[in-house]
Amino acid sequence: MKNPPSLDHLIAALKVLPGVGPKSAQRMAFHLLQREQAGAEKLARALDRALSSLVHCERCNTFSETPLCNLCADSERNQSQLCVVEMPADLLMLEQARCFDGLYFVLMGRISPLEGLGPREANLDKLLLRAQDGVVEEVILATNFTAEGEVTAHMIGELLKQRGLKVSRIARGMPVGGELEHVDPGTLAQALYERRQA
Amino acid sequence: MKNPPSLDHLIAALKVLPGVGPKSAQRMAFHLLQREQAGAEKLARALDRALSSLVHCERCNTFSETPLCNLCADSERNQSQLCVVEMPADLLMLEQARCFDGLYFVLMGRISPLEGLGPREANLDKLLLRAQDGVVEEVILATNFTAEGEVTAHMIGELLKQRGLKVSRIARGMPVGGELEHVDPGTLAQALYERRQA
Ligand SMILES: [Zn+2]
Ligand SMILES: [Zn+2]
Repeated sequence: MKNPPSLDHLIAALKVLPGVGPKSAQRMAFHLLQREQAGAEKLARALDRALSSLVHCERCNTFSETPLCNLCADSERNQSQLCVVEMPADLLMLEQARCFDGLYFVLMGRISPLEGLGPREANLDKLLLRAQDGVVEEVILATNFTAEGEVTAHMIGELLKQRGLKVSRIARGMPVGGELEHVDPGTLAQALYERRQA
Repeated sequence: MKNPPSLDHLIAALKVLPGVGPKSAQRMAFHLLQREQAGAEKLARALDRALSSLVHCERCNTFSETPLCNLCADSERNQSQLCVVEMPADLLMLEQARCFDGLYFVLMGRISPLEGLGPREANLDKLLLRAQDGVVEEVILATNFTAEGEVTAHMIGELLKQRGLKVSRIARGMPVGGELEHVDPGTLAQALYERRQA
């Protein structure tokens, strides 16, 4: 006696989600099939749509439905400043703080030897190419002030300075260990204004 | 500046999962799009397949790909004993314990006023019909020994005794507060053998 195959497949498939083990995958499957069939259907469609329509922006590497994202395509932004963040949510927070009119590069990760994340996972090759387009004059490092974010900022800073670029780090105006997503826009703006040369 | 719509839709759709708030939905979306595209595709297909192929067994109410599940269709099982459990996982545990050759009814829920779960969510109407088929002689209550499981067992016991059925409860051989899924098969078998009339 076993579960029907389609139920077992769903439970197995849910385990691909971060932090979801066998028990919670089972609970999720029952919940979806029992009380959220419409939600399950929506989730399947949203996965399909996201997989088929999202690419990484050619220039800034963030998720985008077009080869060049809206922000990179905006010629009114200051093309000489490039702000490096870990994730798209960090970019959104900086935009909300309305303190920066340059362009971004989204690492889509960080350097974290403990998690097995190296320069490749943090897309450093793509960043080096982007930063050396001849137009960018200053690269502002806005990775998190966590241990991994600091290591990432340090490594990127060294690589870019070797290549003759001006590099700055947003000011440590944020609480130690803090993540960009969680601070208020005012603190974040302050930290950006007070950036110091790296 | 906002996320691309297909990304926002995916984040919103993931919030349908139990215990998943805005932050973890976002983390899950990034993880799927970044590192688990094949897993995301599999998840979408598994959801579609489960939604289209799973129904509730006409007799026992568990998930099944056929109108009558394999177990209910098995004429070698003892048709006069009906064991009531909360969830399909509980049924699987009892089968693994190899201590029972009767049939099951799976509530697919429990009575829990605090969670807003009443007799309807626990499919009691369907159970009453099933138990009064004229063949069932004894109903064995094997809901969990949690507060909700006990309330559920008590309510079902009263309803069935009013209708002249013999009702028993599996023995409290399990730790108080314990859930069927988590005990070892031996303890579970012991509890079933020592069931007492309710
Ligand atoms: Zn872009
Ligand atoms: Zn059945």
